[in-house]
Amino acid sequence: MERPRHQGMAKNTYMRWRLPLVCLLWEGAMIVLFGVFVRFGPEADAHWEEEKRELNLTSDMENDFYFRYPSFQDVHVMIFVGFGFLMTFLKRYGFGAVGFNFLLAAFGIQWALLMQGWFHSFKNGKILIGVENLINADFCVGSVCIAFGAILGKTSPIQLLVMTLFQVTLFAVNEYILLNLLHVKDAGGSMTIHTFGAYFGLTVTRILYRPNLEQSKDKQGSVYHSDLFAMIGTLYLWMYWPSFNSAISEHGDAQHRSAINTYCSLAACVLTTMAFSSMLQKKGKLDMVHIQNATLAGGVAVGTSAEMMLTPYGSLIVGSISGIVSTVGYVYFTPFLESRLHIQDTCGIHNLHAMPGLIGGIVGAITAAAATEDVYGKEGFIKAFDFTGEYQTRTPSVQGGFQAAGIVVSLLMAFVGGAIVGGILKLPIWGDAAAENCFEDEVYWEVPEDEESDVYHMHNPDKPASP
Amino acid sequence: MERPRHQGMAKNTYMRWRLPLVCLLWEGAMIVLFGVFVRFGPEADAHWEEEKRELNLTSDMENDFYFRYPSFQDVHVMIFVGFGFLMTFLKRYGFGAVGFNFLLAAFGIQWALLMQGWFHSFKNGKILIGVENLINADFCVGSVCIAFGAILGKTSPIQLLVMTLFQVTLFAVNEYILLNLLHVKDAGGSMTIHTFGAYFGLTVTRILYRPNLEQSKDKQGSVYHSDLFAMIGTLYLWMYWPSFNSAISEHGDAQHRSAINTYCSLAACVLTTMAFSSMLQKKGKLDMVHIQNATLAGGVAVGTSAEMMLTPYGSLIVGSISGIVSTVGYVYFTPFLESRLHIQDTCGIHNLHAMPGLIGGIVGAITAAAATEDVYGKEGFIKAFDFTGEYQTRTPSVQGGFQAAGIVVSLLMAFVGGAIVGGILKLPIWGDAAAENCFEDEVYWEVPEDEESDVYHMHNPDKPASP
Amino acid sequence: MERPRHQGMAKNTYMRWRLPLVCLLWEGAMIVLFGVFVRFGPEADAHWEEEKRELNLTSDMENDFYFRYPSFQDVHVMIFVGFGFLMTFLKRYGFGAVGFNFLLAAFGIQWALLMQGWFHSFKNGKILIGVENLINADFCVGSVCIAFGAILGKTSPIQLLVMTLFQVTLFAVNEYILLNLLHVKDAGGSMTIHTFGAYFGLTVTRILYRPNLEQSKDKQGSVYHSDLFAMIGTLYLWMYWPSFNSAISEHGDAQHRSAINTYCSLAACVLTTMAFSSMLQKKGKLDMVHIQNATLAGGVAVGTSAEMMLTPYGSLIVGSISGIVSTVGYVYFTPFLESRLHIQDTCGIHNLHAMPGLIGGIVGAITAAAATEDVYGKEGFIKAFDFTGEYQTRTPSVQGGFQAAGIVVSLLMAFVGGAIVGGILKLPIWGDAAAENCFEDEVYWEVPEDEESDVYHMHNPDKPASP
Repeated sequence: MERPRHQGMAKNTYMRWRLPLVCLLWEGAMIVLFGVFVRFGPEADAHWEEEKRELNLTSDMENDFYFRYPSFQDVHVMIFVGFGFLMTFLKRYGFGAVGFNFLLAAFGIQWALLMQGWFHSFKNGKILIGVENLINADFCVGSVCIAFGAILGKTSPIQLLVMTLFQVTLFAVNEYILLNLLHVKDAGGSMTIHTFGAYFGLTVTRILYRPNLEQSKDKQGSVYHSDLFAMIGTLYLWMYWPSFNSAISEHGDAQHRSAINTYCSLAACVLTTMAFSSMLQKKGKLDMVHIQNATLAGGVAVGTSAEMMLTPYGSLIVGSISGIVSTVGYVYFTPFLESRLHIQDTCGIHNLHAMPGLIGGIVGAITAAAATEDVYGKEGFIKAFDFTGEYQTRTPSVQGGFQAAGIVVSLLMAFVGGAIVGGILKLPIWGDAAAENCFEDEVYWEVPEDEESDVYHMHNPDKPASP
Repeated sequence: MERPRHQGMAKNTYMRWRLPLVCLLWEGAMIVLFGVFVRFGPEADAHWEEEKRELNLTSDMENDFYFRYPSFQDVHVMIFVGFGFLMTFLKRYGFGAVGFNFLLAAFGIQWALLMQGWFHSFKNGKILIGVENLINADFCVGSVCIAFGAILGKTSPIQLLVMTLFQVTLFAVNEYILLNLLHVKDAGGSMTIHTFGAYFGLTVTRILYRPNLEQSKDKQGSVYHSDLFAMIGTLYLWMYWPSFNSAISEHGDAQHRSAINTYCSLAACVLTTMAFSSMLQKKGKLDMVHIQNATLAGGVAVGTSAEMMLTPYGSLIVGSISGIVSTVGYVYFTPFLESRLHIQDTCGIHNLHAMPGLIGGIVGAITAAAATEDVYGKEGFIKAFDFTGEYQTRTPSVQGGFQAAGIVVSLLMAFVGGAIVGGILKLPIWGDAAAENCFEDEVYWEVPEDEESDVYHMHNPDKPASP
Repeated sequence: MERPRHQGMAKNTYMRWRLPLVCLLWEGAMIVLFGVFVRFGPEADAHWEEEKRELNLTSDMENDFYFRYPSFQDVHVMIFVGFGFLMTFLKRYGFGAVGFNFLLAAFGIQWALLMQGWFHSFKNGKILIGVENLINADFCVGSVCIAFGAILGKTSPIQLLVMTLFQVTLFAVNEYILLNLLHVKDAGGSMTIHTFGAYFGLTVTRILYRPNLEQSKDKQGSVYHSDLFAMIGTLYLWMYWPSFNSAISEHGDAQHRSAINTYCSLAACVLTTMAFSSMLQKKGKLDMVHIQNATLAGGVAVGTSAEMMLTPYGSLIVGSISGIVSTVGYVYFTPFLESRLHIQDTCGIHNLHAMPGLIGGIVGAITAAAATEDVYGKEGFIKAFDFTGEYQTRTPSVQGGFQAAGIVVSLLMAFVGGAIVGGILKLPIWGDAAAENCFEDEVYWEVPEDEESDVYHMHNPDKPASP
């Protein structure tokens, strides 16, 4: 039951030597670079007993592992199951969604450990890693998973690996500028992960614009069960988002607070999403695309401010607004972006990550600017914004300004970086599929010749209907 | 491929203005009430540094966040993925199962934070929340998810939101009576969550009795893949139940013990469920309905006693019995309830939650009554039952009596509350579907017009078979 | 739509009395044995307050529960969802995969608590259990889940319960020899779990060789959605493997290090698997079987050495190699094993567990032999290998030798044990299915008569195609 049309297609999607070459080359590079640079941090090193004595720690519990490992695992699930399954909604691209996400994230976390390590954990010529580095690597890759959402179904695995290489690099640079040079707070990554990742992906998909994409329109939809698979992704993202936003916050109240704010924001977001999903549809029925995506906007939109004293009701407001904005985006903006701006955004990351990311950055800037010693307490105020050392004299309103600057820098990095990387991905050597074969697993995967695909063929106009 | 019969059906299921109105109204109310009442508890507040000094805490690890957050996330998964996917077993109601569960739970947790907060965390006019409140809110919503199981497929999303509003309120009142007035122990909620939730739901479905429900009989079954989706729900409930029963237990041995008891009970329950599933079927084959549900009865049935010195073998006994009772319930009681008592219980919550919940309450009463200082140790005895202050002189047998009273109160609250709420839900304004359209996602959801639904149509007698 | 051929088949698969008998008998035995032997360990007992005072512990956080519970839950998910869903790839054996895995694991953990308890937690005539025992019980059952993979689809549930009984027993004996007599380190169980479990299963399936298995060849493949269900299993195994390998490591740096090494190894493994999956296929397409399985080999292969100072780049190397070995195994070894050695290995556990398990044992031996006080620090060196008491004078190279001996013992136990148990399972009393009914849920399960199965029947040559 080989589908003959793939044989005759215009583009060469043959991966046999190209994909292995890229994978092995890059894994080889990782091994060499890890060998030269990466070592265990003090809390993961067998010398920890001595370290403990030096730091006067009385319990193994003080190892950062116990503060962060549960959150790390939740974040890990979000990256691999959350993003992976969220993108399985397409009827014939489930393997690509979950499989390519797996591939790019597995590569990305290695490269991110290096890139972020050079910037943040470099000591005496070595990168010293611990659980916080693992979380940050997952975060960094999260921005690539987001960008993947825009080009889902239209790119080859090699393109994805190339994009990951560059995007992780740019992410680390942008993150360094924000966190270290601008001294910006962004624990849940509204700016560094979502705004940057989404506008980067949107720029890439703009550059890779495919004028004839309607040739694969029949495969751009979902089927009943693929929508349920996608809900697995949605729910894991939704449930674990409090861990995401709190994973690298300061120990103690900050982690606690981040989780509560995020929990509240996400809960509110579900209600406004449902409301607008029903309201914006003539028949008043709910649309699975909105439920799968816009319900998550609340997590994105408190990414920057979750560890601040946003307060539970502040979180409800932010979550409510972002659910509305995101749902409206799916109904009105996505078609507009495609028809007018030639931005083909498969998963609608503009609605789930770009706009809520911007909201998150702005809310963060406002919350920071509005901070007072009264609300935070004298010590809490300094701790929350790390107003120590050279930042000792920074005021909340100045901090708010720098937060806003962080948004702008992230956008610039995304546009410029996305344009360059998009240009590279446009080279005709990476093996992407022709327009009529987009959103189709058979191009890159051995697909079982199953009963369902027979049914599928019954609707294929260029094949006889009889089984 | 619009199905014309929905146009012509007797009942008005048009949601376009009603659902958004209810969602937005209630979310608006939440924002206002949160704004007036809800603030961060001391362990999530930026003043925590000062608090720590006052309480003489030497480590951030002493923040309750680290004692409870991993369990919280497990409970969170149970509520949203566990209950949500457990109910996807119906062939054409997966969107409704997972989507409406999402909606009602997201609303319910907000309202529960308020209701439970007023009763338990109210201080100087404010509700001070922390991770334990989040867990309790999830617990409270768990009882609504249970009740949803009885009316699954037969109610509109508005009805579910209305039911959630009332049920959360009644839950909080009942919980207050049990925990504060009767001073009853119920860490895993056999009484407050399961007994109350299940009998409430059964009463509601009795009031909403649909005499012509057999008109949608063809949709009340499962298909092969929907049974596998449901197993995702089952397994997450089963695996994380030790976290559920231990999530709000006292720090230290009590949490540890609750997890072990629950683990043991659930393991035993699987074996007796499998045994009776095969035994009660003429052909000796296993029935997925039993495996999906009765295997969980062991978790329900140790809900009250898990943190007591039930002992591992006591847990095995309780788990074994509850698996048997639950499976027998599915085979004999559910048909009886429907035909004789007109209780249409879609998911069989009577077997999974009601009867095991009662068992749990009784086992808790007996275990409490049998407690001795010898078994618990002098301090452990006082700590386990909180025999301090005005309860200093309460004896185990008196405690057992109060535990039993807790069951009765929960039942009364469920019956009376369920009858009133059922009456409200019977009003013809909430947009529920006609009997022949029950268990059908197309009523409230945009459903992809996919291949599978074509196959589905082949069996629809009132439509021509050709695609 | 009853399929008549089951009525007339040669073998008696009627379970009605046999399965309940075995389940109830064994659960009864568990209750009696738990009643006689199992009690709460000090950290789960209500006397913990006194214990705490004696041990001078200042915080409830020192309870082992908080060091291990999050990892325990991750391991629990791996056993029940990970293994269960990984095996749902077969088109008509999803119920059996996830359901029988559930059954055998639920029984196995009870029996393992006893067997391992007698060897490791026996004190004054009682087995004292805590969270570490739960993890070890899950580990032990993991080896049975692995063996199940080899015989998936070809055995009755009774056979699986019988196998579980014996395999858990042998596991505990083997583990005792390795950990206590040889004083071998094997935190992630490359030897005790994977090598032992896999070769045990392969021996069993060899003994149960079915010459006519090609009669059910049409059911040995996957369908599109069953491959996605399997990916749920894959990803949960992959994501939580760092918890698996670190779950019972020493508190502090060892747990931390194990998680990092495993994370690195698994990431590398994905890239080499993808590379070789594409390279070894003529059309260069990726094969889901490889992605589902070989990507996990990296976790197996660092099982022994993860808590040692393997270093991140060492982990990358081990992970890279094991991904290659495993993928090559699927392409070349599995067909060879079946045609030449008559080893019918349904899930390819030889590639995922046996070979990577051996690699893991060898890497562990080498890493141990290469250990120096310089790398570990003086205290860390002693702590890492527990060179105390009678092992005070053991040198790294001797330790390496004992590690290697551990591999040999595990292999011997697997071969001898597997042969005996295989012989027992060959008795014609356990109700296994005829060759033409293998890989078919209908033999032991009530299967919904759904649309998809109609489609299925359309391809069944010996039935008329009309619905």
